Amino acid sequence: MKIGVLGSGKGSNFQAIVDAVKSGKLKGVEIAVVISDVKDAYILKRARENDIKAFYIDAAPYKTKLDGEAEKKYVNCLRDNGVELVVLAGFMRMIKGSILEVFPGKIINVHPALLPSFPGLESWKQAVEYGVKVSGCTVHFVDRGMDTGPIIEQAVVHLEDGDTPESLHRKIQAEEHKALPHAISLIRDGRIRFEGRKTVISR
Amino acid sequence: MKIGVLGSGKGSNFQAIVDAVKSGKLKGVEIAVVISDVKDAYILKRARENDIKAFYIDAAPYKTKLDGEAEKKYVNCLRDNGVELVVLAGFMRMIKGSILEVFPGKIINVHPALLPSFPGLESWKQAVEYGVKVSGCTVHFVDRGMDTGPIIEQAVVHLEDGDTPESLHRKIQAEEHKALPHAISLIRDGRIRFEGRKTVISR
Repeated sequence: MKIGVLGSGKGSNFQAIVDAVKSGKLKGVEIAVVISDVKDAYILKRARENDIKAFYIDAAPYKTKLDGEAEKKYVNCLRDNGVELVVLAGFMRMIKGSILEVFPGKIINVHPALLPSFPGLESWKQAVEYGVKVSGCTVHFVDRGMDTGPIIEQAVVHLEDGDTPESLHRKIQAEEHKALPHAISLIRDGRIRFEGRKTVISR
Repeated sequence: MKIGVLGSGKGSNFQAIVDAVKSGKLKGVEIAVVISDVKDAYILKRARENDIKAFYIDAAPYKTKLDGEAEKKYVNCLRDNGVELVVLAGFMRMIKGSILEVFPGKIINVHPALLPSFPGLESWKQAVEYGVKVSGCTVHFVDRGMDTGPIIEQAVVHLEDGDTPESLHRKIQAEEHKALPHAISLIRDGRIRFEGRKTVISR
């Protein structure tokens, strides 16, 4: 299964996928291409260091979404590289355009909160400010909404009294690095079916 | 510490408090009075069986909130019985009136979800329909909002593929029956302080 990874930042979740592929946990998965909307994003450097094709594709003039001509370029690049599953790993743009129709049910995202709590940006900060005692991460299929798609997997993190947004973020990321490769393996193995908007994982 | 319990239903959380008092886990806590807005609510029967004062107080003409003359009657009954902490245990009315000023920071509620996910009614049903993989319960201080007050404690429940709203509700209730008495013990021991809207629990 060829996957394409979209990211805007450091790419620590991308690295987790690379590691899972290398260690054999994601046997049969090939990272065909990495695309970033940020020219000097570290995720591109990481990809090249791992001999994975990496492209910067400008997504202007939009600032917060992938749309229009830029979206077409992304879709073409993913298609040209034979991508079957698109993984959003810290990609900081909303996706609601035709890419969803090109890859129906084949785009996933990892979000740093127990959705539907704390959608949107800096969920770890939202969580600390709200004062929750538990948070975590959610791997979900992407739909037109903001972090609203069907959930594949959630992992829990307990907040300690001294936790800051930063310390919580680190704990959540550690869970993301396990949950995202695992969710990819479920898709690779065809183990996910839908009941309405619920996912059921076969054993 | 004298507590008053308000409930509209079966009173299984009330029973958990009774059990915790009897077993010595809530030493120093006395359930001074139980009040229900439902005349034949089983919580009143349970209270009487345990020799605890129990009153039905009509909350009409309102259907979904405690307000006006009815609220005054509730406040008077709680005061007359020396209540220091008000515990909502399945009380199906919004509280946003003067009772909050009479018992500032002294009204707590247990909610069957990991707030801020799934506030409002039938949270277990909301959770199953949304398709989350984890839910749980939240004990929180009551403020003017719907299930928005500062969180004292949260406990996690993992959903299994076969879970129905009913089976999830049972699993959440089992956690509520531990979390609510524990939260009461934290208040009894003065172990909760605030940082903004966050609670910090001293050890």
